[in-house]
Amino acid sequence: MIPFNKPYLTGKEVHYIYQAVLSGKISGDGMFTKKCHELFEKKFGFQKCLLTSSCTDALEMASILTRIEPGDEVIMPSYTFVSTATAFVLRGANIIFCDSRPDHPGMDEDKIESLITPKTKAIVPVHYGGVACDMDKIMGLAKKYNLYVVEDAAQAIDSYYTGADGLKRPLGSIGHLAAFSFHETKNIQSGEGGMLVISDSQFNERAEIIREKGTNRSKFFRGEIDKYGWCDIGSSYLPSDIIAAFLYAQLENLEDIQKKRISIWNQYWESLSPLSGKIRLPFIPDYATNNAHMFYIICNSFEERSELIRVFRANQAYPVYHYLSLHKSPYYENKYQGLPLTVSDHYTDCLLRLPMFYELQDEEITKICNIVLDFYSK
Amino acid sequence: MIPFNKPYLTGKEVHYIYQAVLSGKISGDGMFTKKCHELFEKKFGFQKCLLTSSCTDALEMASILTRIEPGDEVIMPSYTFVSTATAFVLRGANIIFCDSRPDHPGMDEDKIESLITPKTKAIVPVHYGGVACDMDKIMGLAKKYNLYVVEDAAQAIDSYYTGADGLKRPLGSIGHLAAFSFHETKNIQSGEGGMLVISDSQFNERAEIIREKGTNRSKFFRGEIDKYGWCDIGSSYLPSDIIAAFLYAQLENLEDIQKKRISIWNQYWESLSPLSGKIRLPFIPDYATNNAHMFYIICNSFEERSELIRVFRANQAYPVYHYLSLHKSPYYENKYQGLPLTVSDHYTDCLLRLPMFYELQDEEITKICNIVLDFYSK
Repeated sequence: MIPFNKPYLTGKEVHYIYQAVLSGKISGDGMFTKKCHELFEKKFGFQKCLLTSSCTDALEMASILTRIEPGDEVIMPSYTFVSTATAFVLRGANIIFCDSRPDHPGMDEDKIESLITPKTKAIVPVHYGGVACDMDKIMGLAKKYNLYVVEDAAQAIDSYYTGADGLKRPLGSIGHLAAFSFHETKNIQSGEGGMLVISDSQFNERAEIIREKGTNRSKFFRGEIDKYGWCDIGSSYLPSDIIAAFLYAQLENLEDIQKKRISIWNQYWESLSPLSGKIRLPFIPDYATNNAHMFYIICNSFEERSELIRVFRANQAYPVYHYLSLHKSPYYENKYQGLPLTVSDHYTDCLLRLPMFYELQDEEITKICNIVLDFYSK
Repeated sequence: MIPFNKPYLTGKEVHYIYQAVLSGKISGDGMFTKKCHELFEKKFGFQKCLLTSSCTDALEMASILTRIEPGDEVIMPSYTFVSTATAFVLRGANIIFCDSRPDHPGMDEDKIESLITPKTKAIVPVHYGGVACDMDKIMGLAKKYNLYVVEDAAQAIDSYYTGADGLKRPLGSIGHLAAFSFHETKNIQSGEGGMLVISDSQFNERAEIIREKGTNRSKFFRGEIDKYGWCDIGSSYLPSDIIAAFLYAQLENLEDIQKKRISIWNQYWESLSPLSGKIRLPFIPDYATNNAHMFYIICNSFEERSELIRVFRANQAYPVYHYLSLHKSPYYENKYQGLPLTVSDHYTDCLLRLPMFYELQDEEITKICNIVLDFYSK
C-alpha cells in the first residue's frame, strides 16, 4: 500500500517533548516556541515569526491585523484551500476570486488589476505547490493601489523568488504578512501547525496582543508591564510547546528533508517527462524555485483523472486531488458575481497529486510512475 | 523554589505520541482524537465531544453555532478570563457583564434576570475554580427568555451539579454547549488544548463543519459523500493528534490525578481553616462538587495581597492572582454602560491562587501554609 502521505520522525521530536515538560512550561510560547521563532528568523531572515496552531490561524491573524471590515474586498485565487477565504470572510470581507494561470495553478497575476476596486483592501497570493507567484507584479499593484499583500505560503517553506532586482528572497518575506502551514502533509510538520511571518514591523506589537486573546500578556511575561489586561480583539492562536518541540526537531532537519524530497521530485520528473505531450507536468517559472512540496500531473479531463485514480486504487496506491474552485462552492456560488474562472475549474477537474513523503521508497516511485506510464500508453 | 504550576507526565504520553506517528496520521481527528472523544463521552455521558486547540476555540465555535450577530447581547461574569468575552466579541456581540457572588467568584445568578433585554441571545456561566454555578436558576432563565446557555467549563472537568430534581450532572452537560480547557494549569492537560461539548444535538452537524474550516470534510472522511467543499464559515479548530495522544494519557489517569489534587486541596483547607475569620477561604455551595482545580484565599485588600505576594516571593514561592474585571479593561471600559460591579472588583484586588499541581510535595504545602499563617498571625 502506498499512501499519499506518511508523517515521520526525524529523530529528536520526542526527546524535545521530554525537555519541554521538564522545563516546566508546555503551554504556548515556551522554550521550543522561542527556539523555533529564532531559528526561522535566522534561517530565512524573516523580520518576525509567531507560531500558530494552524496556517488558518495565521491567516486569521493577518485578517485582523489588516483591519478587514465588512464590505472590504480581498482578492485571491479560486483554486486554493478554503482557509485562504474563510479567514477573511470571518471579518466580513467579500472575496474577489481570480482565475489561475494557464501554465500553473497559481493566481494569474495579469488578471488581478481588473479586479481592484475602491473597496479592495488586500491581495492574497497563494504560492501553489511552493512555487512563487510573480511577486514583482503583485507588490507593484499593492503599491499602486495602496493594498496589503498577505502571502499564503502554506506550502512554501524554503522556496524563493527572484525579482527584477536580482535578489533571491524567501517566500513569506515579500508581502506585508505571510502564513505558513506545518500540517502533516507539509515539508516540515507538527501534525497541525502554522506560523505568521511579519515583514512590515508596524504589525509586530498588535500581532502579539491578538495572538494572546487580545491581551498584552507577552509584554507582561517579558517584565515590561506589571499586569496584563484585555486590549483588543484576538484569539488563542499560540500552539502548545509540545507542538513547537516536535516542529523544532523537524526544522533542524530541513536540509536533509529538502534533499530527499527534491530527489523524489526529480525521479518523478525524469520518469514521467516522456508523457509531456500527453499530460501536463509541473511548471516552475524562471523567477521561482522548487521546494519539492508537491508533484502533480494534469490530466486531460475529469473522467480521465477519475479512471486513473481507479487504476491507482486497484494497485493500492493513493494519489489525491484537492481544491474545488471556491467560487463554485456551496457556500459561495450564490455570492459570486464575477466572470467564469475556467482555468481554475480545469485544475479542479484535472489536477492529481502523486504520493510525496520523506520515506517514499524508490520502488514505490517506480511503481507509481509505471501506473501513469501504462495508463497513458493505451 | 515552588512554582505556581508544573506540568507532569502521567506515564504514557510519549508512548501514545509514537503510536500516533506510526498510525500514519497526526493531523487533526486522528486515532487519539477519536479515543479522547469516546472516552470523554463514555466517562461523563456527554452527548458529543469535539477536541479543539484551546478552550478559546471551543467558545468561538459556540459563538458561531449560536449564530451570534452584531448587536446581540451575551451575559457573562466580569470576573473571568478574556476569552470568555473575545469569543463572542469576534462575532459582534455586546457583552453584558454580571457581578460575582459575594460568597464565591462565580456570576451572581440572582442578578442575571435584570440584565436580560430583547437583544439577549446567550448566557455564559463560568464555573469558577470548577465549582458549579446554580444551573437550575440559569437554565430556568434561559427557558423563560428563550436563550442559549454556553457553559464556560474551562476549569470544571470532573465536577458536578445537583439540581432540584436530585440528579447529579457533570458540568458541561447542562447548557446547550460547553467549553473545556486543557491548558497546562488544568487538572488534565496538553499544554494548550480544549474541547467543545454539545448537549443540544441540533448543533452536531454544523459543529463538525465549522471545526473543519467550514467544510464537510468529516463526512467525506467517513465516506458519506464523495467530495468535500466549502459550506459555511469556520476555522481550523481541531488539534494535532500529537496533542490528543498526550491528553489521552492524562485522561486515562484522571482518577489518580483527582485523588491527588483533592488531597492537596484538603491539606490546604485543614491547615488554613484557623484563618477563616481573618481571610476568606473557598466556598463550595451544597449543589456543587469540588474538583480541586484551585485553592484560593481572599485577602482583605489589594495592599494586603501585594504584601503577602512579596513575602511569598522572598521565600521563593509563587502564588498568582489573575482576572482583572473585564468591564474595567482597556478594551471595554469605554464600551461598558452598566452599574459598578464591586464584588467582581473585590476579587480582582484580593483573590490569590496558591500553587496547585500533581507533584506538589507535602513539605511544600506546609511551607506555603506556614507563610500564610505567619503573615496573618501578625
